Amino acid sequence: MLDTILINVFRRDGDDDDDDGQDPALQELYSSWALFILLVLLIGALLTSYYVQSKKIRAIHETVISVFVGMVVGLIIRVSPGLIIQNMVSFHSTYFFNVLLPPIILNSGYELHQSNFFRNIGTILTFAFAGTFISAVTLGVLVYIFSFLNFENLSMTFVEALSMGATLSATDPVTVLAIFNSYKVDQKLYTIIFGESILNDAVAIVMFETLQQFQGKTLHFFTLFSGIGIFIITFFISLLIGVSIGLITALLLKYSYLRRYPSIESCIILLMAYTSYFFSNGCHMSGVVSLLFCGITLKHYAFFNMSYKAKLSTKYVFRVLAQLSENFIFIYLGMSLFTQVDLVYKPIFILITTVAVTASRYMNVFPLSNLLNKFHRQRNGNLIDHIPYSYQMMLFWAGLRGAVGVALAAGFEGENAQTLRATTLVVVVLTLIIFGGTTARMLEILHIETGVAADVDSDTEIGMLPWQQSPEFDLENSAMELSDASAEPVVVDQQFTTEHFDEGNIAPTLSKKVSSTFEQYQRAAGAFNQFFHSSRDDQAQWLTRFDEEVIKPVLLERDNLKNGTKK
Amino acid sequence: MLDTILINVFRRDGDDDDDDGQDPALQELYSSWALFILLVLLIGALLTSYYVQSKKIRAIHETVISVFVGMVVGLIIRVSPGLIIQNMVSFHSTYFFNVLLPPIILNSGYELHQSNFFRNIGTILTFAFAGTFISAVTLGVLVYIFSFLNFENLSMTFVEALSMGATLSATDPVTVLAIFNSYKVDQKLYTIIFGESILNDAVAIVMFETLQQFQGKTLHFFTLFSGIGIFIITFFISLLIGVSIGLITALLLKYSYLRRYPSIESCIILLMAYTSYFFSNGCHMSGVVSLLFCGITLKHYAFFNMSYKAKLSTKYVFRVLAQLSENFIFIYLGMSLFTQVDLVYKPIFILITTVAVTASRYMNVFPLSNLLNKFHRQRNGNLIDHIPYSYQMMLFWAGLRGAVGVALAAGFEGENAQTLRATTLVVVVLTLIIFGGTTARMLEILHIETGVAADVDSDTEIGMLPWQQSPEFDLENSAMELSDASAEPVVVDQQFTTEHFDEGNIAPTLSKKVSSTFEQYQRAAGAFNQFFHSSRDDQAQWLTRFDEEVIKPVLLERDNLKNGTKK
Repeated sequence: MLDTILINVFRRDGDDDDDDGQDPALQELYSSWALFILLVLLIGALLTSYYVQSKKIRAIHETVISVFVGMVVGLIIRVSPGLIIQNMVSFHSTYFFNVLLPPIILNSGYELHQSNFFRNIGTILTFAFAGTFISAVTLGVLVYIFSFLNFENLSMTFVEALSMGATLSATDPVTVLAIFNSYKVDQKLYTIIFGESILNDAVAIVMFETLQQFQGKTLHFFTLFSGIGIFIITFFISLLIGVSIGLITALLLKYSYLRRYPSIESCIILLMAYTSYFFSNGCHMSGVVSLLFCGITLKHYAFFNMSYKAKLSTKYVFRVLAQLSENFIFIYLGMSLFTQVDLVYKPIFILITTVAVTASRYMNVFPLSNLLNKFHRQRNGNLIDHIPYSYQMMLFWAGLRGAVGVALAAGFEGENAQTLRATTLVVVVLTLIIFGGTTARMLEILHIETGVAADVDSDTEIGMLPWQQSPEFDLENSAMELSDASAEPVVVDQQFTTEHFDEGNIAPTLSKKVSSTFEQYQRAAGAFNQFFHSSRDDQAQWLTRFDEEVIKPVLLERDNLKNGTKK
Repeated sequence: MLDTILINVFRRDGDDDDDDGQDPALQELYSSWALFILLVLLIGALLTSYYVQSKKIRAIHETVISVFVGMVVGLIIRVSPGLIIQNMVSFHSTYFFNVLLPPIILNSGYELHQSNFFRNIGTILTFAFAGTFISAVTLGVLVYIFSFLNFENLSMTFVEALSMGATLSATDPVTVLAIFNSYKVDQKLYTIIFGESILNDAVAIVMFETLQQFQGKTLHFFTLFSGIGIFIITFFISLLIGVSIGLITALLLKYSYLRRYPSIESCIILLMAYTSYFFSNGCHMSGVVSLLFCGITLKHYAFFNMSYKAKLSTKYVFRVLAQLSENFIFIYLGMSLFTQVDLVYKPIFILITTVAVTASRYMNVFPLSNLLNKFHRQRNGNLIDHIPYSYQMMLFWAGLRGAVGVALAAGFEGENAQTLRATTLVVVVLTLIIFGGTTARMLEILHIETGVAADVDSDTEIGMLPWQQSPEFDLENSAMELSDASAEPVVVDQQFTTEHFDEGNIAPTLSKKVSSTFEQYQRAAGAFNQFFHSSRDDQAQWLTRFDEEVIKPVLLERDNLKNGTKK
C-alpha cells in the first residue's frame, strides 16, 4: 500500500519540473486522485484474485488479469490529455528496487520451507547457477547473432547481448508459485521451482551488474575468468552480509529483553532485514542476495528467540507487504506498456527474443535435468532425487519472466537502451500471459499430482502457537484451521511426523534434554528414518548436526532450544 | 520502514535537477547509503526506547531522545560538504501527509478502546472542538498583537495569525500516550487525553484549511459564520466518508468468503482504509477525519467479520507501520531544525509564540474543565464525570505540539511563510522537549494514580483468540500473557466483567440468543450495572441499543454476532 502511495508521491514531485511549476495545491489534489485510483486498482486486482481462486477458475490467472487491467488503465491514461498522470505511472527502476522488490524477497526468505529447501539444495543450486548461466549465454548469443544480421538497424556489442541475456534470465517467482499454491502441487516440484526462481533473480542481477563493468571494454579470454571471479565474490560477500545481519539479530534478541516489548521487537526485526538490503547495495554488493539470506537466517535462528507476538506480527507484516507489492508490480507492468512514451518497439527483434527466451529455457532445463538424473543414479542408485519428464516439462513451462528483468533493463545505457527496454517489457508481459495463463492447464496435461500438501502454513509450525505445545490443544487448533479454511493447505500431523523423523537422526545430543516420551517416539522412528534418508550424503548430515549442536545453542535462548531444534 | 525508504528515494530523484544531473549510479549509491543511515537511526531510536522503558528511566523520554538524535544527525549533515543528503532529509509536508501520518491515524482509530471512548465522548468532544477553537483564537490573537507591535519587522494579516493559531493547536498524540501507556495511568485520564489529541489534530487541520480559503479576503461578521459552516460541513462529510467505507468493508466481508483467503482479506482491509484517506483528500475533505472514523468503524463492525488471521494481521500490520512512522517523525523533526536551509528564525517571535502556546492551552483546559464539572454536577449530581484538578493540570501539561503542526505550517504562503514555518518547528520541538521530558515527573507531582490497567491490549479482546472463547483456555491464555510480559498491561478478568455489565444493560434481545449461563451471569450483574451506569443519559443508551439490535445484525455475520455484541 505504502509502496503505491509513495511511488506516486515520488513521481509527482520528481516531475514537478516537467510540469512547468504547476500550482502545488492542484498537484496535491492530483496526487490524491492518482493514489486513490491506484488503491482502487489494487483492491480490484485483489478481489479478482479472490474471485478466481474461490471459483476455482483454471483458464486464467490473477496475475494475468492484473497485467491486463494495468494495460487497460495504461491505455486510458495514454489517450487522455495531459502528461502529469502519465509521468506519474511510468516504470522507474529505483522504486522497483528500493520499494517493491524488498518485501517480496524478504517474505520469500522468511516463508521458505527450510527442510524441503535444503533437501533439494543440490538441484536448486544447479538450476539457479548453471541454469541461469546457460540461459543467459544462449539468449545472449542468439540475440547477438540477430543483431549481427542487422535487421531493423540494431547493432549491439557482445556485452550488451549478454546483458540482455542476463536480464531475461530472471524468472518470475510470483505467478507460478501462486498457481502451485492454489493447486497444492507436489512438494518437491514446488520447492525446486521456488528455490530456482528466487535464486536465479539474485544470480541474474549479480550477472547483469558484473557485465556492466565490462561495458565498452575489449573482451579477451581472461575477461571470462575475471567476470566469473567478480560474480562469485559478489554473491558470497552478499550472502555473508545477509547471514551476519540475521545472526546479529538473533544474538540481539537472545541477550536483550526486547521480547517484553513486542512492537519494538517486530519493528527492529523488519528494520534489520532492510538494513542488510541497503547496506549490501551501498557496498556495491547484491541487496537481493543479502536480503534473501537474511530472511532465511532470521527464520532459522532469530525466529526462535522472538516473543509469540513478534513471531506472528513479523510473519503477517512481511506477508501483507509482499502481497501488496506483488499485486502492484503486475498492474504496474501492464500500465508501463502504454505509459512509457520513450520506448522504441522493434517487432522482429521482440519476436526473435521471445523465441530465444523459450529456447534458452529449454537449453537450461532439459540438459541439466538429465545431468542431475544421471548423477543421482550413479551416486546412490536411488530414484528419490530423480526428476521425471513431467517435472522437467513443468520446470520449462515455469520459466516466465517477471518484473526483475524489466527493472534490470532500466540499467541499460547507450543508443540501444530504449529498444532493449521495450523488448524486455514486451517479452516479460508476453511470457506472463502465455506461460502464466496456461500453467494450470499444463499441470493437468502433464498429470502432475495436485491436491497434496503444498507449503505447510508456518503458523502451524511447532512451537509457534502456544496451544500447539501441549497435545490437549491440538483439537482446538485443527478446528480453528478448518474454520479458517485457509488457502494454504495444512496437513499438521504429517508435518509433525516428518519433523520428528528428522530430529531422530540429527540431534542425538539434544534429544537427551527433551522429554522421555519424545525419545521413545524418536527411537521408534529411527529405523524408518534411516531407510528414508539414506540418500543424503554424510556431509549434509554433519552440517545439520553442527547446526543443531553447536550453532543453535550459541544463538538460541535455552528455553527456545527445544522448539528451535525441532524445526 | 518503507516510509523511510521511500522518503529518501523520493527525495533523491526529486532533487535530481538541483544536483545538476549527477551520475545515476552515484545517485543510486547515495540513496542506498542515505536509506541505510536512516534505518540505523531508526534502529537506534527503537533500541533507546527499549532501554529507557526497560530501565524505567523517568527523567527522559524516548521521543525526546529521538528528537535529539535527529538534531545531532541534522547538524552533522548541515556542516558536511555537499547538498545532496541535506536536500534528501529536509521536511516535506507531502511525505508527511501521504506517508507518515496515515498509519498513525489509522492505528489510533483501530486501537481505540471504544467503550471508554464513548463513555467519555462528551468531555472529549468539548475539548476537541471548543478547546481547539479557543486555543486557536487565543493563540491567533496573541500572535496578531505581537505582529501589530511590529518587532522584528513582522506584519501579519489576521487570517495568517489565526492560521498560525490553528497550526499550533494540534497536540501530539504520540509522546504523552506512550508515557501514559508505560505508566499505566488511570483509564479515564488516558482516554480523555487520547481522544482529545487525536480529534484535535483533525479539527486543527480542517480549521487551517478552512482559514486558507479566507486568505487575502476582507473579513466581516458574516465570514465567521461562513467559516464555521465550512468547518462543520467538511468535518461531517469527512466523517461520513470514513464511516461509509468502513461499513462497505464490513458488508464486503460479510457477504463474501474473503475470510478463506486471509492474506487477500488483510490487504483489502488496509487498502480500503487508505482509500478513505485519499478519496477524502481528493474531494477537498479531511483525510485524517475520514481515516480515523474508518478505523473506528472497521474495528467496531468489520473486525467481527474477519477471519482469525486477518484480525491478527491487520492489528499487527497497522501497529508496526504506526510505530515506525512515529519514531521516524521525531528523528525527522529533529533533523529538520538543521537541514531546512531556507527557514527564517526570529528569536523574539519564537519566544512569544512559545509563551502564547502555553497560555492558549491554559485558556482552553481550565475554563472548559470547570464548565464540564459544573454541567455534570447540575445534570445528575454525581461525581463520576468530574475532572479533578490533578487531571486538569495533566491535560494542560499534555498540550505538547507535534508533527501535524509542522506539516500544516508547510502550507503557509506569502512573505511570512519561512518565518512561520521556522517558528512552528522550533516551538514544536521546544514543547516536545519541555513538556514531553517532564510528563513522567508531573504524574508523580500530581499524585496521579499509575500502575492501573491502561489500555487492555486488544489481542485479549473477547472472541479474538480462539482459546478465549471457552473458559478452559483461560489459564493457558493468562500464562501466555505473563510469559510475554507485554508492555501493555492486561487485566483480562476485569475487562471481561465490565463487558458483561454493559451487555446486561444494552442488549436484552440479543442476550436471548446466547447461552443460558451467560444470561444468569447477566441477571446477577444487572442490579449492580444499573447502579453503576445510572449517570448515562437515556439517549446514549438508546443509541447503543440501536447499534446492538439494528445495525450490528445487518452488518455482522450471524456467527459473529455473539462476539460482536459482547464488545
